[in-house]
Amino acid sequence: SKSYNITLLPGDGIGPEVISVAKNALQLVSSIEGFEVAFEEMPMGGAALDAVGVPLPDETLNSAKKSDATLLGAIGGYKWDKNEKHLKPETGLLQLREGLQVFANLRPATVLPQLVDASTLKKEVAEGVDLMVVRELTGGIYFGKPRGFSTDKNGQEIGFNTEVYAAYEIERIARIAFETARKRRGKLCSVDKANVLEASMLWRKIVTALASEYPDVELSHMYVDNAAMQLVRNPKQFDTIVTNNIFGDILSDEASMITGSIGMLPSASLGAAGPGLFEPIHGSAPDIAGQDKANPLATMLSAAMLLKYGLGEEKAAQRIEAAVLDTLNRGFRTGDIHSAGHKLVGCKEMGEEVLKSI
Amino acid sequence: SKSYNITLLPGDGIGPEVISVAKNALQLVSSIEGFEVAFEEMPMGGAALDAVGVPLPDETLNSAKKSDATLLGAIGGYKWDKNEKHLKPETGLLQLREGLQVFANLRPATVLPQLVDASTLKKEVAEGVDLMVVRELTGGIYFGKPRGFSTDKNGQEIGFNTEVYAAYEIERIARIAFETARKRRGKLCSVDKANVLEASMLWRKIVTALASEYPDVELSHMYVDNAAMQLVRNPKQFDTIVTNNIFGDILSDEASMITGSIGMLPSASLGAAGPGLFEPIHGSAPDIAGQDKANPLATMLSAAMLLKYGLGEEKAAQRIEAAVLDTLNRGFRTGDIHSAGHKLVGCKEMGEEVLKSI
Ligand SMILES: CC(C)[C@H](C(=O)O)[C@@H](O)C(=O)O
Ligand SMILES: CC(C)[C@H](C(=O)O)[C@@H](O)C(=O)O
Repeated sequence: SKSYNITLLPGDGIGPEVISVAKNALQLVSSIEGFEVAFEEMPMGGAALDAVGVPLPDETLNSAKKSDATLLGAIGGYKWDKNEKHLKPETGLLQLREGLQVFANLRPATVLPQLVDASTLKKEVAEGVDLMVVRELTGGIYFGKPRGFSTDKNGQEIGFNTEVYAAYEIERIARIAFETARKRRGKLCSVDKANVLEASMLWRKIVTALASEYPDVELSHMYVDNAAMQLVRNPKQFDTIVTNNIFGDILSDEASMITGSIGMLPSASLGAAGPGLFEPIHGSAPDIAGQDKANPLATMLSAAMLLKYGLGEEKAAQRIEAAVLDTLNRGFRTGDIHSAGHKLVGCKEMGEEVLKSI
Repeated sequence: SKSYNITLLPGDGIGPEVISVAKNALQLVSSIEGFEVAFEEMPMGGAALDAVGVPLPDETLNSAKKSDATLLGAIGGYKWDKNEKHLKPETGLLQLREGLQVFANLRPATVLPQLVDASTLKKEVAEGVDLMVVRELTGGIYFGKPRGFSTDKNGQEIGFNTEVYAAYEIERIARIAFETARKRRGKLCSVDKANVLEASMLWRKIVTALASEYPDVELSHMYVDNAAMQLVRNPKQFDTIVTNNIFGDILSDEASMITGSIGMLPSASLGAAGPGLFEPIHGSAPDIAGQDKANPLATMLSAAMLLKYGLGEEKAAQRIEAAVLDTLNRGFRTGDIHSAGHKLVGCKEMGEEVLKSI
């Protein structure tokens, strides 16, 4: 029977708790669907800094590269916040993305009927929101050179970064976005700042040039400042959004918060060929770490994305997705999504209920 | 008696309509408060492109430089959207900001009790929001060099921009922000991406170093992705926000939309010494231009900011602000903020009602 290697990176804060629950779900659906999964658990982020002094040990990156897919919990925490850049947990995450060449970050933001009240938006604005942000993840200002510190001609200290995109980088992320839109409702909105930035002008040119290859997809363009407004005004207008690394960082977080339940949201980061990286979009929540309070559903749904996009095990993915919905329908809620009339449970119990549903 | 020169830049779309109404208000309050205003109306944006072929004629910039303050309506429209960069209305606006050296853009986002229903946020989340975004306006990636197009070593076309800040640029905007916070509720949140960008690391260092000079202001820091979320989750947590040019572009628009009434929101752009630039934050709305449908209140309130920050005529400013509130209390609404039980009026009539209230 088929067999897959999965690298698990529990990371920091609530990471280990949510990963342990998701691991059980992966194990269960694999046995039902008749394939095998072997896990390798590796240190990453603050945990790796404490253990071996770097945020992404070579062994961890190598494990991720050799495996069929990687599931990450969360990284970071107050403890390492003041570290120098190369010793920050976040730097490890950027190195992992770069090392795996996962240039396409897919971040769905969906308002589930069961959780529409969790949104701070009015019910009629929030209900039915179902959008996907396709964020470029290994280019732009995050990685552009030159970068650093210097002094200008007046002797002033300066800090600088380079926003840069090459045509091929834009083309490959745009293709993923067109294909994503095609499988969804056929609408793609490309977000840029082409009225000001040259990097955005090239972005718009390349995206526009591809449109004729995807006649079934309706392409539109929006400036990033307007997109930040429209997500608040009427998020339902969006189906698929494609944008650069930094705008994607901002807009995907804004879109997540519009659902009101970021404890529910997964993400997938994919490359051209190699293994993908899957992680919940929430952070490491150090304030509730180790207290069995975390919501494991975002990591469960990330595991489902791993099965679908990473391993091509669509049926197993659907089992997890259906089980998460069923568990919500049966009234179970962790603290972050709890409201009157529902059963408040911890991370472990929520995990067990999802296993029952599976 | 005192006398001021004011440059009026009606611009495009609904710009001329809202400027004409605001001009009347400036005239009326000046006569009541006993000072004189002389207006010089100059072409700018698309109107200037059509008339003389550039988006910011020298005469227009010179008028703005020589005057005591400039009031701008709005610029841009479909007609000029495909123009090359140096022939875009937006480029004229950037040249005007640079020419006047107005590095500090103050953008209040206030939810008026009368208009709380206009927000897409739930009432309990929206009501009482009263924040100010202090955006750096003449630096960062908008103006940084090098910028442009080129080919990389693989022969790929690239587009690039430079995000760069010098210490003095950060210091001067931070001082404005600390002073703004001091006059408000004493809370300043500096927004950056210091976990990734060197330009943001310098930003955070300089802002932090100034804090000891403003012991009465409580300083915090937030990453831009988190700020985009927190504005949706709980906008009331913010008093004053200070951030760079591009993050300010995005976050101030998001904050405006949270109020639900961007037809109500003014802005002020100030330099170290020279005259300031005042404008509503809404766009030129070409679809309703010339139809007497525009909401002139944002421009009225921008005229009030002009009186207060530009001319130091605080009392005259308060007269306009009070009159705008009074007009809303008397039930008058333009289409963008209209709801059942209120009197729907056009731009002109709204202007006349504000004059009556004054
Ligand atoms: C932790 C940080 C470096 C990261 C980013 O900015 O990409 C995070 O915000 C994200 O969106 O995954
Ligand atoms: C029109 C555009 C160049 C401008 C900007 O990006 O600064 C606008 O969005 C604004 O916020 O005033």
